[in-house]
Amino acid sequence: MKVNGKHYRSLWWDDGKGALQIIDQRWLPHDFRIQQVDTLQDFADAIVEMRVRGAPLIGATAAYGMALAARLDPSDHHLDEAFAFLDKTRPTAINLRWALNRCRSHLKALPEAKRAVAALKLAHDISDEDVEINHSIGRNGLEIIRSIAAGKKDGEPVRILTHCNAGWIATVDWGTATSPMYQAHDSGIPIHVWVDETRPRNQGALTSWELGSHGIPHTYITDNAGGHLMQHGLVDLVIVGTDRTTRRGDVCNKIGTYLKALAASANSVPFYVALPSPTIDWAVDNGVAEIPIEERLEREVTHIQGLTEEGGIGELQVTPVGTPGGNPAFDVTPNHLVTGLITERGVCEASAEGLAGLFPDLSKLAESA
Amino acid sequence: MKVNGKHYRSLWWDDGKGALQIIDQRWLPHDFRIQQVDTLQDFADAIVEMRVRGAPLIGATAAYGMALAARLDPSDHHLDEAFAFLDKTRPTAINLRWALNRCRSHLKALPEAKRAVAALKLAHDISDEDVEINHSIGRNGLEIIRSIAAGKKDGEPVRILTHCNAGWIATVDWGTATSPMYQAHDSGIPIHVWVDETRPRNQGALTSWELGSHGIPHTYITDNAGGHLMQHGLVDLVIVGTDRTTRRGDVCNKIGTYLKALAASANSVPFYVALPSPTIDWAVDNGVAEIPIEERLEREVTHIQGLTEEGGIGELQVTPVGTPGGNPAFDVTPNHLVTGLITERGVCEASAEGLAGLFPDLSKLAESA
Repeated sequence: MKVNGKHYRSLWWDDGKGALQIIDQRWLPHDFRIQQVDTLQDFADAIVEMRVRGAPLIGATAAYGMALAARLDPSDHHLDEAFAFLDKTRPTAINLRWALNRCRSHLKALPEAKRAVAALKLAHDISDEDVEINHSIGRNGLEIIRSIAAGKKDGEPVRILTHCNAGWIATVDWGTATSPMYQAHDSGIPIHVWVDETRPRNQGALTSWELGSHGIPHTYITDNAGGHLMQHGLVDLVIVGTDRTTRRGDVCNKIGTYLKALAASANSVPFYVALPSPTIDWAVDNGVAEIPIEERLEREVTHIQGLTEEGGIGELQVTPVGTPGGNPAFDVTPNHLVTGLITERGVCEASAEGLAGLFPDLSKLAESA
Repeated sequence: MKVNGKHYRSLWWDDGKGALQIIDQRWLPHDFRIQQVDTLQDFADAIVEMRVRGAPLIGATAAYGMALAARLDPSDHHLDEAFAFLDKTRPTAINLRWALNRCRSHLKALPEAKRAVAALKLAHDISDEDVEINHSIGRNGLEIIRSIAAGKKDGEPVRILTHCNAGWIATVDWGTATSPMYQAHDSGIPIHVWVDETRPRNQGALTSWELGSHGIPHTYITDNAGGHLMQHGLVDLVIVGTDRTTRRGDVCNKIGTYLKALAASANSVPFYVALPSPTIDWAVDNGVAEIPIEERLEREVTHIQGLTEEGGIGELQVTPVGTPGGNPAFDVTPNHLVTGLITERGVCEASAEGLAGLFPDLSKLAESA
């Protein structure tokens, strides 16, 4: 989407430099910095340090990492090494594993001499596919927003709450949860977005930055506020993204999503999850019991980053010195709290039947695996 | 409670200096500063600038202000002047007016020569009464913790989650929600407290400072984390405070409390609210429908205060410049989500019957009003 009037993807290949360019998202929304990724260690750092973030973008980044590995040394052994090295960067990100698997198996089937070129092409393809998938998610989600808009008086906005940043900068373009918002806004449906701050990393500031850049009305709220807003009829629907959805539709997403799903359920607010099919984990059924939750750095909780009065980027400690901080990074929303899953193939119930109905191919593939 | 091994109240009279001492809370949790309050202007500043905060503490501070006034000039005229001067410091603070009224009417009934001594004694009494109420709340809440501890293996802590700061520094001592925690810890029951950050004002940092100073194990978490912790059996009970409880037991408390109550209910975690009886609003029944929710300054959401690397106190903007922020400051937890109300008279069901059963006198008084 657009930044300062120019269209960007969140990563792109620079032919002239022969290298991947990313937006170093650690400085957003306060500063827009582009970084070149040169070494495998750079790739790992980019993922671990969340310079790139969001499941699809992590997947695409990893694919370019495999392309670099294939260029450096296309042997099976080295591809395996690169796979293992990149795979351990983010345990919760199902897309990461998916992209790495796809690259490795595709490349191993080729003669070594053809692997470097094929690997780069595959990374490009994976990026383009992500853009196409997200565009389709948006088109399907748009219909939900359109039907709610149809019940509104003229000019009244559809009020959507979202958590974290499942926006275009968490994907290659469009975003997942935001894609229906962009498409609704672009087709003239008035919307207003309640943007959850999403402590500890305040990805809500990224969502605000995205929406603001695109001209979509929105309000930044603390993570505490959503329950109250739903209780008072101020939210028409919730759309969030997901890092991983289980076979039966349990949704693993940024910590705090579950609390909003509980509030939506208690107040009869539709709660939708937008997801590209590669984030479905067909091997997992019960998300609460089976998905390990990443415990991230204490410092993300005890400190906070922002814009100083002088216009620089600074950090403050919000806790007393020495206070221990707990930082589970994700939680799982059980399927019964999810109204529907918005995928690139359509919208389905959050259930094994719903997902298998839309993705009979993938679900059968998983069964036979 | 204890700070650096020494017991403090949040205000106290120093006989040697003949003056009131307060903790200047503007610097907490990052700096512990004690201030002597010498002049009526000092008293007004302490209240206006929120060096003291929390309704009971403001009331007790004002009582000492009246004691100073009576010492300087015990005439009716001067007491009226001091009343007016202190009353305007926080025009909406119910406890402030209540304490000032109580002092003035008590003193005016006495000969001028006896007023100075009587005024100081009354200020002591008002402080002691607050301590006694909170101590009783703690004693009653302690029994709940004790019964959970009885089901634990030796040495396993009772894990309590709390939201905001209903702690000793918001009262004269003990606090409300924290009082059972202090008493459990002091009687040798191992506890661990999950402290919600409580954005936007991060009162969790105050709670962490309190608990840490007293030696109670705790972990500071984002407001998003509690649902996940409860879902995974890591929380044995929730205890929060309240600003206002309705006749039927709906609980108005800091924004985000409702989300934790929903999560507690969904995961069968007992959810208790600690309250002194003066915070029961016998005139209100349905809290969600009837209690107006204060919308506070946008800047509390878009900016955050903390400790700089240099050890000073600074502020950062967390949102993109120009992003609108929404700031509802409280929410209402309906009574059906509340396991019980912990009061100075005992624990009761969150219902009209439960409250009237414990407080037949107050409930009848309200009916006849």
